[in-house]
Amino acid sequence: MKVRKAVITAAGKSQRTLPLQTLVDRDGTSKSVLAILAGEIIAAGIEEIAVIVCPGDEEVYAAAAGSFASHMCFIAQPDALGYGHAVHCAATFTGDDPFLLMVGDHLYLSQVEASCVAQLLESAATEDCAVSAVQATHESKLPLYGAVGGHRVPGSDRLYQVEKVVEKPTPTEAEQKLIVPGLRAGNYLCFFGLHVLTAAVMKILGRQLIAGRADLSSALAEIARSERYLAHELKGRRHDIGLHYGLFSAQLALGLAGKDRDEVLSNIVELLARSHV
Amino acid sequence: MKVRKAVITAAGKSQRTLPLQTLVDRDGTSKSVLAILAGEIIAAGIEEIAVIVCPGDEEVYAAAAGSFASHMCFIAQPDALGYGHAVHCAATFTGDDPFLLMVGDHLYLSQVEASCVAQLLESAATEDCAVSAVQATHESKLPLYGAVGGHRVPGSDRLYQVEKVVEKPTPTEAEQKLIVPGLRAGNYLCFFGLHVLTAAVMKILGRQLIAGRADLSSALAEIARSERYLAHELKGRRHDIGLHYGLFSAQLALGLAGKDRDEVLSNIVELLARSHV
Repeated sequence: MKVRKAVITAAGKSQRTLPLQTLVDRDGTSKSVLAILAGEIIAAGIEEIAVIVCPGDEEVYAAAAGSFASHMCFIAQPDALGYGHAVHCAATFTGDDPFLLMVGDHLYLSQVEASCVAQLLESAATEDCAVSAVQATHESKLPLYGAVGGHRVPGSDRLYQVEKVVEKPTPTEAEQKLIVPGLRAGNYLCFFGLHVLTAAVMKILGRQLIAGRADLSSALAEIARSERYLAHELKGRRHDIGLHYGLFSAQLALGLAGKDRDEVLSNIVELLARSHV
Repeated sequence: MKVRKAVITAAGKSQRTLPLQTLVDRDGTSKSVLAILAGEIIAAGIEEIAVIVCPGDEEVYAAAAGSFASHMCFIAQPDALGYGHAVHCAATFTGDDPFLLMVGDHLYLSQVEASCVAQLLESAATEDCAVSAVQATHESKLPLYGAVGGHRVPGSDRLYQVEKVVEKPTPTEAEQKLIVPGLRAGNYLCFFGLHVLTAAVMKILGRQLIAGRADLSSALAEIARSERYLAHELKGRRHDIGLHYGLFSAQLALGLAGKDRDEVLSNIVELLARSHV
């Protein structure tokens, strides 16, 4: 499955300024978070990106995207009707095509040459189906994420056939439905904020919206029942920049992983030496 | 001299997005740089702040100021005619009153209870004259700053009577005009980005503009010749967030100086442990 379109969601009230923050990327240049995400998407071969924004944010986002703005269209989510609705705002943009879905308030740091986006697109291409990126996550963090249950794909150590999807499961629910053989005890596969999805997902979200509220996790649960749908444990880490000190941690991780590692380390040492308790 | 008004300049092309960046302040709450600066100004007893912005940036700045926006007015600098012109855009706002002048792309971390702004306002009140904050700076950094020459005020270890002001002096110029008795060899008193100025400065800038280009350092040189004008070596450090990794360093310094010191330190240790060279 060749993916040519991407959707970045950035309309959440508390998250809308996060993609506009400036970080120094691994290559040593200062960019907005939005430009870092767009750069990773475009480097992986996708050329069209729709960004779902709050009405009125189009211009400041276009400025923050810099040279990547020419690959972007901005779609305003008219009302704050939740994440499923935000995704569905891109339904006309994605049409009948599969698409990469990415949240605008995370950064993804690959631990290998291929970026996190490239790893996910690669498995979607090879397996020819919808694939969600997941990360083995301790049960104490289940209240924060959507989680999947399923079984390892034979012959692969990082792909799982998804059988269940539960948004923010309770520990009991997780134990009953989401234990994945082979993971460390007390760990579950939680969403990473990165998916390759098929047009069927947009159709389900559209149907949900007519009935009331759209919810991505329950749409994905339906996908798991109706088509082949995999989870991919990427070789990388996500950084939620909306957390307390999230931007700082993301910057630190970028700095330590990039060409300026020595500069960042000496910065830390100098400020530590100067700081008083 | 009681100061009731402040001017923050933020219209520089390359600096205009910096005051909008989000940092976690020493109190552990996430704020824009603009809100951190405004908070320090208001806590020091000033109630009216004019922010000089690029035309069109008013709204996004007001949003970034949060609850401090009610103390602010935004003045657009219609054309990019330099720093002296930007300051003079606030001439009607300041009128006949003295004012605090602050750049929007620096953060000031005091090493004592009183903030950097409070320290400067205190000396302006006690000495009843214009005072610029300065920092002893190594000659290798002279090309970046305005510098002053003068003599220590008798009985004070941090106040200097300013006799000369030179913008970005060459080492030779500095050696000839700016050596300050009592400073370490090779160090000069450079501006800190924080001044308490009198209405006379606006008049000089206005005259300069009629003749051509306005320049703050040469206006301050004129002030040094015509009225009592001091430099105050504050107990604090400035962080230029426009530098490479400047935001990161500022965040690190804020984090290490604040209530979340332990959280920031464990963040650093965790990411260092996880990072691969």
